[in-house]
Amino acid sequence: MTYDLLIRHADLLHLNGAEGTGTEVQEDVCIAITGQFIVKIGPAPEFEQDSAHQVIEASGQLALPGLVNTHAHTPMVLFRGLAEDLPIERWFNDVIWPLEGRLTPEDAHWGALLALVEMIESGVTTVADHYLFMDEVARAVEQAGIRAELGWTYFSSQGAQGLEQGAAFAQDWQGKAEGRIRTWMAPHAPYTCTDDTLRQTAALARSLGVGVHIHAAEDRQQTLSSLEGRGITPIAVLEQCGILEGRTLIAHGCGLLTEDIALLTPYRDHLGVAHAPATYLRLAMGLTPLRALKAAGIPVGLASDGVPSNGNFDPFEAMRLTAMLQKHERGDATAMPVLEVLKMASAGGAAALGRSHDLGTLSAGKLADLILLDLSGTQHQPLHNAPASVVYNARPGDVRTVVVDGRVLMLERKLLTMDKARIIQEANRAAKRLLRSTAPTVQYYAP
Amino acid sequence: MTYDLLIRHADLLHLNGAEGTGTEVQEDVCIAITGQFIVKIGPAPEFEQDSAHQVIEASGQLALPGLVNTHAHTPMVLFRGLAEDLPIERWFNDVIWPLEGRLTPEDAHWGALLALVEMIESGVTTVADHYLFMDEVARAVEQAGIRAELGWTYFSSQGAQGLEQGAAFAQDWQGKAEGRIRTWMAPHAPYTCTDDTLRQTAALARSLGVGVHIHAAEDRQQTLSSLEGRGITPIAVLEQCGILEGRTLIAHGCGLLTEDIALLTPYRDHLGVAHAPATYLRLAMGLTPLRALKAAGIPVGLASDGVPSNGNFDPFEAMRLTAMLQKHERGDATAMPVLEVLKMASAGGAAALGRSHDLGTLSAGKLADLILLDLSGTQHQPLHNAPASVVYNARPGDVRTVVVDGRVLMLERKLLTMDKARIIQEANRAAKRLLRSTAPTVQYYAP
Repeated sequence: MTYDLLIRHADLLHLNGAEGTGTEVQEDVCIAITGQFIVKIGPAPEFEQDSAHQVIEASGQLALPGLVNTHAHTPMVLFRGLAEDLPIERWFNDVIWPLEGRLTPEDAHWGALLALVEMIESGVTTVADHYLFMDEVARAVEQAGIRAELGWTYFSSQGAQGLEQGAAFAQDWQGKAEGRIRTWMAPHAPYTCTDDTLRQTAALARSLGVGVHIHAAEDRQQTLSSLEGRGITPIAVLEQCGILEGRTLIAHGCGLLTEDIALLTPYRDHLGVAHAPATYLRLAMGLTPLRALKAAGIPVGLASDGVPSNGNFDPFEAMRLTAMLQKHERGDATAMPVLEVLKMASAGGAAALGRSHDLGTLSAGKLADLILLDLSGTQHQPLHNAPASVVYNARPGDVRTVVVDGRVLMLERKLLTMDKARIIQEANRAAKRLLRSTAPTVQYYAP
Repeated sequence: MTYDLLIRHADLLHLNGAEGTGTEVQEDVCIAITGQFIVKIGPAPEFEQDSAHQVIEASGQLALPGLVNTHAHTPMVLFRGLAEDLPIERWFNDVIWPLEGRLTPEDAHWGALLALVEMIESGVTTVADHYLFMDEVARAVEQAGIRAELGWTYFSSQGAQGLEQGAAFAQDWQGKAEGRIRTWMAPHAPYTCTDDTLRQTAALARSLGVGVHIHAAEDRQQTLSSLEGRGITPIAVLEQCGILEGRTLIAHGCGLLTEDIALLTPYRDHLGVAHAPATYLRLAMGLTPLRALKAAGIPVGLASDGVPSNGNFDPFEAMRLTAMLQKHERGDATAMPVLEVLKMASAGGAAALGRSHDLGTLSAGKLADLILLDLSGTQHQPLHNAPASVVYNARPGDVRTVVVDGRVLMLERKLLTMDKARIIQEANRAAKRLLRSTAPTVQYYAP
């Protein structure tokens, strides 16, 4: 048999075994890829007669499903470090929304590319992005070779134009980049979109055959404001406006109440929640009720959110923060064990995006999105427990090789699709210009 | 003027300015070192006539005080990943204390060396270590060139022998390694040491002129057990036994009550608390009341604790967890701002160890312990805010160069005092042997 790509002699991380049984890592495995798909995976001796157009020798490296980032705002990387130690109102009103008012398509272009460099270098193979200038983001995705679920953010303050732009983007870019791009409708949030906008969104999403990616119940305050202002929670607003009838991806949900979980449960087969713990801690937003979501069978994926609140795109930090915080909040060191959080970063993210059928695990028939980790660094020694070391000790620099859609995007830390030095230079130039320019703010935060 | 070592054209991180004023980083600074000391630090033009036996060109690198790890158990690195997702009782009784019963001096030797490799690679220049086989740890410190505050752990279950061994170690190793080693008495904790042991400890510490480094009120349960069993808190036990009369370093204190803080306040001039957030989260121990300690004027430093609970020795992770958790717990995004946590990792640690006079800041007259960071990595771009990026985005791999006591221990990521490959190999061999061997446990956890 001749494959397009053959990854030889890797160690394979199994995420569906029992915790702590020592069966989580299978040594000396080969992964065969033809076109976009994994076509065979198994013990190396089964591949002795096989060849491939491209071979990656992965001896001593750990193969994992590509990591899924279920909620980001890629071009915001340009604002890194500009809004530290601020409460959420000042974070939006004093820094972020004024900066977004000054953003140009060219800024978004370089910002998106820089963000995708960092994500690929960190082992992220799919990102759900929710932002402005999404045609620029989509072009960056085309170039980078990453997989993306894209929606163009709109507020009701933009009038009909925002919604129309979002719908046109969702239609134009659906299935582009050799199928790596899927599109979504992306209304900002129930507190920035009227019920009319949300109802039109639901209808448009249905007619376009796309999902709705939206911020909702981001923190407890938003939930309380909604209850006070109109008597129902932001989640109930989504339901009343028909959003939840179709595929829905909810960002954050730190303000979800018990009754919201109950309300969401009937929709769980086409619903997901994006969990970005670093942002929640840094903006003091509280935490998404992960235990209740799990009990309700609602898929949860990990997320980076935007860099100004999250710091960076390190998916290993998102994993360990998720595990650590669940133990801390529940007062139970057995909560959120190693394999559970590894699954959340991969299969959980795929499920939250409605892509369990083709993403999130390493198995024949799935799309070939995978990463190879080198755990020989000092911080992993002695390596008694590879899955735990991935969660607690891995750093983006441990990711050696990244494959998306059967194509090698990074090989032994070398990016093959992007000119990193130029992207860093241009993104820095864009960021400097942004700081000097002036323009009206995009929105005002008053949930 | 001719110096021993001249670091040229670094950027200098100032930790005593006002937050967010843009004056935190001074560009193009030279740092001159003679013997163990910083003798001059200032703008590069002031050094134009000067020379040095060794010159480090640090253009584009950020100079910081060496980071201080105020509480570790270095040889425990051999147990990395062996006690995941366990409650504290099982963590001690099922895994850690049985393993420690099997530990040999040779294991401790290689474990300590491996831990020091990881610490130096991560920018730690001083470590307060509290463990068994401390003569082996001290020899590792001699070789590595790091600065260390060392105490040999003892339990009352060992009888007089434990205390005597601790005192002999404190006497023998005081001031060794060209003055880089300072010693402490290191009783394990009030729940494993009787009042008699603690009283004898206080007397011995006084006669030896050393401090006492002890675990106390590690979590709320220990405090409650102490209150239930004897009517006073672990901190009140320390006071009654005379421990607090002399220099005291308290590890953890997640179980400190308001009355404990009041009790500790009069001793604050010779008292410190070690804060190891990753351990607290992973073992669900609660959190040290940092705000109350600050209000009381009690110095707090950051710590790694042992690797089986902490995962690794990453001091940047300890910084960001500290900042993030304070924001989260207080529901206030302005809590624990960037400069405050950077100070805790450096000057705060020095103060907690009673070494504000000679460690913790970069200034003429202080010991020459410093690190150089490279913030050119993708995760720092654009670098609008270097101090924030050190806290939230820096990784151990960003530490390029480490100087301790005027001596270069790592230069551009190359370790100059240790054979890393051999140490990793021998530590792995020791760990494998440990897992096969048997011996009685050292202690039983029943606070």
